[in-house]
Amino acid sequence: MPRYRLTIEYDGTPFVGWQIQAAGLSVQGVLTEAVRRLSGERVRLTGAGRTDAGVHALGQVAHFDLSRDWRPDTLREGLNAHLRPHPVAVLVAEAAADDFDARFSATRRHYRYVVVNRRAPLTVARDRAWRVIRPLDAGAMHDAAQLLVGRHDFTTFRAAECQANSPVKTLDRLTVTRAGAELAIEACARSFLHHQIRSITGSLVQVGIGKWTAADLRAALEARDRSRCGPMAPPDGLYLTAVEY
Amino acid sequence: MPRYRLTIEYDGTPFVGWQIQAAGLSVQGVLTEAVRRLSGERVRLTGAGRTDAGVHALGQVAHFDLSRDWRPDTLREGLNAHLRPHPVAVLVAEAAADDFDARFSATRRHYRYVVVNRRAPLTVARDRAWRVIRPLDAGAMHDAAQLLVGRHDFTTFRAAECQANSPVKTLDRLTVTRAGAELAIEACARSFLHHQIRSITGSLVQVGIGKWTAADLRAALEARDRSRCGPMAPPDGLYLTAVEY
Repeated sequence: MPRYRLTIEYDGTPFVGWQIQAAGLSVQGVLTEAVRRLSGERVRLTGAGRTDAGVHALGQVAHFDLSRDWRPDTLREGLNAHLRPHPVAVLVAEAAADDFDARFSATRRHYRYVVVNRRAPLTVARDRAWRVIRPLDAGAMHDAAQLLVGRHDFTTFRAAECQANSPVKTLDRLTVTRAGAELAIEACARSFLHHQIRSITGSLVQVGIGKWTAADLRAALEARDRSRCGPMAPPDGLYLTAVEY
Repeated sequence: MPRYRLTIEYDGTPFVGWQIQAAGLSVQGVLTEAVRRLSGERVRLTGAGRTDAGVHALGQVAHFDLSRDWRPDTLREGLNAHLRPHPVAVLVAEAAADDFDARFSATRRHYRYVVVNRRAPLTVARDRAWRVIRPLDAGAMHDAAQLLVGRHDFTTFRAAECQANSPVKTLDRLTVTRAGAELAIEACARSFLHHQIRSITGSLVQVGIGKWTAADLRAALEARDRSRCGPMAPPDGLYLTAVEY
């Protein structure tokens, strides 16, 4: 069976998340349905990152098999036609090797978290960013973030329902940059724990408002205790930006 | 009566435009209603730019008078509370001179038009940009745009229903830049004709796809004939970014 790889963009706002669930609209669900309408086949679609409800993607990757050969361009255009009116778009469709696995072949996942630091409510960026009212020191956040880079037990920054075998992960890069009122927190790693970036972002914001020092962040990490995590950031500001293979 | 000046941001998608109309939700209408709920006064609110339905603002400016003195911060916070759930936010509220007029005192208006140049439908940028499928040559668009800078009769790029006294306007700056798939067309002038930027953008896209040469654009301008304008760009990609006084 020929295997296909899709690069996908979506607005996570109307979805229960990437994964098909008993109730509610999922990104995986609307994509699977678009494949069915186009090809007549019910496929099993595997994604690189199982984004939560409200989390967006600019470069999610997924794979699936079809019984016959399709021209990649025909697949992309056909899927996009059948995806309407959902805010999900196939950016790239391509033939993949039989052993390509969107989830397990991934070597690096890139995420961005967008914070808008101002008093006024969001309008054009509503559902696209987290508004933080108290002034944030992005430099202090960036410096503290460097304590989290590398191989650590991230139990403090892990959802209770996380299904990973181990809380030990290697964070390759974690940067905080500011442009006007907008802060971007960019993280990359081979893989992440459930809620890891939103947990880290929430804790970095504690540093940014001056409630935590860098030493407090380090102590929270070293405690390996979920109750030591800062208030978790909402999903609205999180984007899966790219996946490397 | 003390006069107040507001700097306002909004998502134009749900509105019939800036201006109050017989039917439908307008930005001016929801702001006027927020002032009424906060102060109990029915004010006349004047904006710098009467944006069309679907056009956004990052820095619209408006003024109005109240019978008593308000602390600007109280005004801003109170208006934002009463503006919910509409996607309109007061970024700044400040006391203004009695002769300040948001419309007539403006010396320069800045607009940005965002084009996303790709095949795939928009998701996170839906209602926020114009998707153009055919490949655009941003350099050619920028070069051609320079022919429109300066003082010209812009009849070709003017809506039939435009109420300006004269079609002669001075365009101070018009640039086209590209970052990845996104093109930004930035325009500034003391004032614009109705639909001028969307008309110019539509015509520049004709240049970008290679259907028009720069000479064709110049000929269209010099014809002073609305029928020579390229297909007008939709409102979704247009932002009133700032007003200078």
